[in-house]
Amino acid sequence: MGIALDKVAINQATTREQWDFRQSVEGYRRHGVPWLALWRDKVAEIGLKEAVRIIANSGIKVSGYNRLGAFADPHDRAVVRSETLAVFDEAEALGAPCVLYFPGDFRLFAKELGDARRRLGELVFDIAEITREHRCRLALEPLHPMLAADRSPLNTLAQANDLCDMVEGVGVVIDVYHLWWDPALDAEIARCGKDRLLGFHVSDWRVPTRDLVFDRAMMGDGVIDIPHIRQQVERAGYMGPVEVEIFSREWWQRDPDEVIEIAVQRCGRCV
Amino acid sequence: MGIALDKVAINQATTREQWDFRQSVEGYRRHGVPWLALWRDKVAEIGLKEAVRIIANSGIKVSGYNRLGAFADPHDRAVVRSETLAVFDEAEALGAPCVLYFPGDFRLFAKELGDARRRLGELVFDIAEITREHRCRLALEPLHPMLAADRSPLNTLAQANDLCDMVEGVGVVIDVYHLWWDPALDAEIARCGKDRLLGFHVSDWRVPTRDLVFDRAMMGDGVIDIPHIRQQVERAGYMGPVEVEIFSREWWQRDPDEVIEIAVQRCGRCV
Repeated sequence: MGIALDKVAINQATTREQWDFRQSVEGYRRHGVPWLALWRDKVAEIGLKEAVRIIANSGIKVSGYNRLGAFADPHDRAVVRSETLAVFDEAEALGAPCVLYFPGDFRLFAKELGDARRRLGELVFDIAEITREHRCRLALEPLHPMLAADRSPLNTLAQANDLCDMVEGVGVVIDVYHLWWDPALDAEIARCGKDRLLGFHVSDWRVPTRDLVFDRAMMGDGVIDIPHIRQQVERAGYMGPVEVEIFSREWWQRDPDEVIEIAVQRCGRCV
Repeated sequence: MGIALDKVAINQATTREQWDFRQSVEGYRRHGVPWLALWRDKVAEIGLKEAVRIIANSGIKVSGYNRLGAFADPHDRAVVRSETLAVFDEAEALGAPCVLYFPGDFRLFAKELGDARRRLGELVFDIAEITREHRCRLALEPLHPMLAADRSPLNTLAQANDLCDMVEGVGVVIDVYHLWWDPALDAEIARCGKDRLLGFHVSDWRVPTRDLVFDRAMMGDGVIDIPHIRQQVERAGYMGPVEVEIFSREWWQRDPDEVIEIAVQRCGRCV
């Protein structure tokens, strides 16, 4: 149980309220963390050129780039095309292996959830076409069913796998927070196979959970059997980093150095 | 779209903060509602004998009895047996066709969610054995995955159907609030078939949802395609009432007569 430091990634969202782009890169590095996941708004604050320079000089590796979407209008192909190319170009400049796509409120796609899911499939096909020349890959991250209305109509790994079966080159990110409840999870992780697995995110489910979005727990403080899920992911062939991504009003109020220190400790004991 | 008044049931939880047992029976009747679902704590307040008398005199029909569980210790077979018999005897005295079972926090069953689900299966088998002589049937209601930690490890209709396949006589209750997000819902409703469908509950998913338990919306005020789900349930053979069950701090603050009036109207337009 637990992973070595060289497998730890921190997602900038974990310290998003405390640290800006430069502070987060320096902060994670100070704790010996070799990987980080970037957010587009943090890059925008400082500018792409400077962000690329900071990353290059840090020696830190990028595990992923957040995020593509939500498109203001996913039916406007010109907007989808230019926005997608912009995000993928940034991601490649920053050395990110994948871009995470989040569709947003299902009513952007259609009036009913079922229709929205069908249209999302068509859009994923279009995005894959648009980014065919990029090394960087499109990553689908199913979000918890409690977020099905306003964050993403993609809510199970089965759905993501069905899409990957149909669209060449697309992969998935497994986040234990979003998927731990799923009785089909082990089977669907096995179904992914190595090539499709682009990321593995950890945090924990707090009891009670007081907010649908901003109340994730630190690994070990909740009820998710994280080692079991990591074992399944590694058995399926995943060899990349384990990314700590904690959206939490509580942890955002704490000293960020303390947050990262605890996150690294917990990766060694509870993951 | 919409159902006739003779199909409307109101669950006592909908006015639980405003009306006691007698007031709710009289209140629903005043609005012409022919069905209601009972709660054990409301019955306990007034006593079983008086509750039976009030129901008998009201002419109102009982759609279900809430609830069996959570057992303080689901491994203690003597406790499970006596508690189960007590609840089923009450339910039959009150004329309820089914008792809803809610397992509670999965950690009552086992340390890990997967183990808890296996043990839940064994317990459902035991409960079915214990109640073999009762006319009243055991109903499994899958709860939303956001409640997987502390309310129920039964979180999809597929899981409930798997259990029903294995245990004779057990049925399911479909609640749109808990299941609307599931990409497999239509297929799993069809899989239920007529005999297994013991109830159909409606409310709506509010955007944003501010609480994991007590923020359900009135039908028509949220994003669930209720008529679509009702159509699937009826296509599968369900002919029973449509039960309004709204756990909401907001609606609990309103005049209960107004709540029931609106609920009945919405059943005629949005269900």
